[in-house]
Amino acid sequence: MVTLPAPLAAWHAIADRRDATDPADLLADLLAHDVVFRSPAVHTPQEGRALTTAYLSAALVVLGPTLRYRREWWDDTSAVLEFEAELDGFTVHGVDMLTWNDAGRLVDFTVMVRPFTGLTRLMELMAAQLAG
Amino acid sequence: MVTLPAPLAAWHAIADRRDATDPADLLADLLAHDVVFRSPAVHTPQEGRALTTAYLSAALVVLGPTLRYRREWWDDTSAVLEFEAELDGFTVHGVDMLTWNDAGRLVDFTVMVRPFTGLTRLMELMAAQLAG
Repeated sequence: MVTLPAPLAAWHAIADRRDATDPADLLADLLAHDVVFRSPAVHTPQEGRALTTAYLSAALVVLGPTLRYRREWWDDTSAVLEFEAELDGFTVHGVDMLTWNDAGRLVDFTVMVRPFTGLTRLMELMAAQLAG
Repeated sequence: MVTLPAPLAAWHAIADRRDATDPADLLADLLAHDVVFRSPAVHTPQEGRALTTAYLSAALVVLGPTLRYRREWWDDTSAVLEFEAELDGFTVHGVDMLTWNDAGRLVDFTVMVRPFTGLTRLMELMAAQLAG
């Protein structure tokens, strides 16, 4: 039996929810105040818990229904999770990269996806979700 | 002193070369015959040692001069390497994902990069390098 680092287990508990509960309360317990979100699309980091919560909540709406985690790697302060999802027939293959502090709160959440078609479709759906 | 898995150490030896040697001979020792290369741009896997060697050699020409590996994670059969590079002022932040077989030969080499501007510039430069 492999024991996951607590922040990684906490993220899985949030991502694995199959109900429509807003994850903001759960994320508030997991994210450090000064957490930074680095999107697959934009170079500029999105700074702070409010912005990061907005992006992660939107990503869970857009990707959540088809999100499947495939493999993961971790050490004492970070983890990489490989995932796949389907967006209107476009395959999205990506990684979530989580880094946490000594208190077990995430200080960095970076997402990368491939291929180009999957990224562009994800960008369109994320923009609509964030605007909605 | 951390001991890297042999395939990961072999990849670093290839990527860290700072001379102009063609890496094809070195890659021939590292890649399985049925290796698959999954590019950040294209959904379709590039199958076989010849195509994978062509893509990795081109990537080392394009990214090599500014390539810096930042963090890495691994287990018995795979590794994830986080890197950064600069292409004409565009930042490319990415991961190499390596999977190897029991003989220590790579069977899958997947690359993902962010942000969108870095991916599009990388695609342009890779297309030119592969056509050259």
